[in-house]
Amino acid sequence: MQVLCLNCGSSSVKYRLYDWDKKETKATGGVERVTVGGSFIVHQAPGLDDLKIAHECADHKAAIKLIMDTLVHKDHGVLSDVKHITAVGHRVVHGGEKFAKSVLIAKEVLDTFRKLSDLAPLHNPPNILGIEAAKALMPGIPHMAIMDTAWHQTMPRSSYMYALPYAWYEKYGVRRYGFHGTSFLYNAKRAAVLLKKDPFKCNLVIAHIGNGASVNAVKDGVSYDTSMGLTPLEGLVMGTRAGDHDAAIDFYIMGKENLGPREIDSLLNKKSGVLGVTGKLTDRRDVEEAAAKGDERARLAIEVESYRVRKYVGAYVAAVGGVDAVIFTAGVGEMGDVLRGRALEGLECMGIKLDPERNKAAKTRNAECEISAADSKVKVLVIPTDEERVFIEDTVALCEGKYDVHTNFTYRFQKPAYRNTLRDLAFAKELGKKPWLMKAACLPPPAKNPAKV
Amino acid sequence: MQVLCLNCGSSSVKYRLYDWDKKETKATGGVERVTVGGSFIVHQAPGLDDLKIAHECADHKAAIKLIMDTLVHKDHGVLSDVKHITAVGHRVVHGGEKFAKSVLIAKEVLDTFRKLSDLAPLHNPPNILGIEAAKALMPGIPHMAIMDTAWHQTMPRSSYMYALPYAWYEKYGVRRYGFHGTSFLYNAKRAAVLLKKDPFKCNLVIAHIGNGASVNAVKDGVSYDTSMGLTPLEGLVMGTRAGDHDAAIDFYIMGKENLGPREIDSLLNKKSGVLGVTGKLTDRRDVEEAAAKGDERARLAIEVESYRVRKYVGAYVAAVGGVDAVIFTAGVGEMGDVLRGRALEGLECMGIKLDPERNKAAKTRNAECEISAADSKVKVLVIPTDEERVFIEDTVALCEGKYDVHTNFTYRFQKPAYRNTLRDLAFAKELGKKPWLMKAACLPPPAKNPAKV
Repeated sequence: MQVLCLNCGSSSVKYRLYDWDKKETKATGGVERVTVGGSFIVHQAPGLDDLKIAHECADHKAAIKLIMDTLVHKDHGVLSDVKHITAVGHRVVHGGEKFAKSVLIAKEVLDTFRKLSDLAPLHNPPNILGIEAAKALMPGIPHMAIMDTAWHQTMPRSSYMYALPYAWYEKYGVRRYGFHGTSFLYNAKRAAVLLKKDPFKCNLVIAHIGNGASVNAVKDGVSYDTSMGLTPLEGLVMGTRAGDHDAAIDFYIMGKENLGPREIDSLLNKKSGVLGVTGKLTDRRDVEEAAAKGDERARLAIEVESYRVRKYVGAYVAAVGGVDAVIFTAGVGEMGDVLRGRALEGLECMGIKLDPERNKAAKTRNAECEISAADSKVKVLVIPTDEERVFIEDTVALCEGKYDVHTNFTYRFQKPAYRNTLRDLAFAKELGKKPWLMKAACLPPPAKNPAKV
Repeated sequence: MQVLCLNCGSSSVKYRLYDWDKKETKATGGVERVTVGGSFIVHQAPGLDDLKIAHECADHKAAIKLIMDTLVHKDHGVLSDVKHITAVGHRVVHGGEKFAKSVLIAKEVLDTFRKLSDLAPLHNPPNILGIEAAKALMPGIPHMAIMDTAWHQTMPRSSYMYALPYAWYEKYGVRRYGFHGTSFLYNAKRAAVLLKKDPFKCNLVIAHIGNGASVNAVKDGVSYDTSMGLTPLEGLVMGTRAGDHDAAIDFYIMGKENLGPREIDSLLNKKSGVLGVTGKLTDRRDVEEAAAKGDERARLAIEVESYRVRKYVGAYVAAVGGVDAVIFTAGVGEMGDVLRGRALEGLECMGIKLDPERNKAAKTRNAECEISAADSKVKVLVIPTDEERVFIEDTVALCEGKYDVHTNFTYRFQKPAYRNTLRDLAFAKELGKKPWLMKAACLPPPAKNPAKV
């Protein structure tokens, strides 16, 4: 069974082809600059040289066609025929209140995503374009939607309702939906394995920190609250998004600078966050470097970003009445020891104590690490996220007729012997260069011949 | 020394006359419906019947003149001549970044308040009108401004800076200022007395919950963070204000309902919060009653409001690295046992444990109560707030040439023997009717002949 994962953004299509029978990634890559001119594909496959080909893609259909052609490329291909693709898993950002789990994409499902485009104008339209194109190019096989919002449908109303005019909820669906759900699902399940606990007896705080960032409070194994809201603007300080702030500021600035709602929305999403504070940087490695050189605004950005994380950890520990573990995941979560260290400062009062050396060593996207001190009541874990693993398992289970919502379904990556082999491809080089990574306090220790599960 | 406190709102002027030598309130009251037609004064003085007189006040000057006339009224007056008023303390909401303590109102001070009117358009203009009127009517005596923002000037930049374009801070002063500072100062100092600790060794979370509401994190006795921001819109769920929400909602609704920035700002400030959720109620007693009768949206309002408080308690415990006490104050904080109980549910993980019976008994605005369980690491206190006590002491100290910022000044209400006698007047009747109140776990137990300090 060959499963293709597709993640369509406004100007990009990322993909991964996974061989379910052999339990290995056959290829991974992406088409960039779709629709905007100067498109190219980057393609990686085990045992083959990396490939980069310039090829204009005027629309998402052309990009997906390029991916399919590359997968059967005479030199760099990994399939003899695209007909060997068994099923496709598509990322869809906004599933609204209707979907609490992944779903086979029928016409009415696509109609629902279209209706929700209003709530996710940057994400749902390209997601839909990608689905339409892929269905046209690969008809007759199952296409499945895996939504960022589905995981959060277990939130109680006290978490998802805002203190706004109630009619806004009734008429326009204004409520907290939350995002990054696929990553949180993966992390919550993996954390339970690492903690050796029943997943439905785990309370967790999971901080998914990449360019976008959100925190998830998990109670008894299901999502209880999350920092992103109706849209991904709310919550943490992000690369370019403001996160939490006094809404009255927006109206004040609109008056001062004579801006309309779209303009201020764009400034809050694209010119704020770490970029807004530093005035020039979004990559946290650059920020750390600038701070080390004495850049005061880079220092301020680190202070503001890490302090916001700390407040959310405290808030969510309170929300769920105590936690088993705090988890850091995604690019900055996995690599950002400075951020993690500052975010957890002084949290001994709630049983959270970091081991500074373990924290410093755990700069890896390829191993699950425990970075809490031996006497910390609450474990602190770094888990490399893998949303595509969820895409693949959902899609395979659907094909096999075994899929259900995560509370009634056990993923294969929940097996104790599971080791994330998806990552091995992308990070083999990194590991080769930095053998010290393997000295990090991995949990469980990486086996020499990891069982493929 | 007779000190007059004035608090001028857009259509009201509240006052209290205090005899510093005798340490007693001589009169208290307010003029309502100023400028809007149908104005009247309500006036209370110990040993005299309550007075209510209809009298049109077209402006704030007329209202202050009415107060002065009433203070020397032949039957209800408490002064033989208004010339016996020694000094006036004025509430000013927004002092910006310039003032970290109360200040004598000179021309340049008033000019600064005027410049800040932009940041507090609802509050500073009437505050300024009141000051101008009072200075015209009572020339030659000191007029002092006590600002809601001054207390919060100790916040570190990680607390007061937003992750917004930095130029907004530089050009327009966009930052967190915080409000309710006078109440927080009073509570922080009183809490230290009740905890028998050096005030500058106390870490506290103080929840000031009235119709407006905010939370304050206090570290080593000074303000470290607070939930209100540039304006009083941010933070907790309030009577009619939304508090925290995804800012993108505002732009979404502006588009859907074709609203301008002023209109949406007004909806967020006046039609949201508890009113928005319930659709009809703001008074928390009405909400509790409706919830008890099965009103689902009243129940939802209680859930959303108390959950928001819980998250802030957790966030601020994390912010300051553990606290000595959590304090509830102001109308709902002092009387709302249901809110307090729900807000602190499940916080044993951070050493906070409520005594349900003590919590239920502590429905009083006239006694300082401890409502934590005997084995709670963190004390939970209910402290009746008294902003005017700070007004009076600041004003007297200024007249005596002894005043300084609170880190260099000790208030008389910080004496262990102090008991709040200001409240006695207003709440004597309440106490008379509800003697059970005195059974609440007061701290310290009310003395029969309390020392007047």
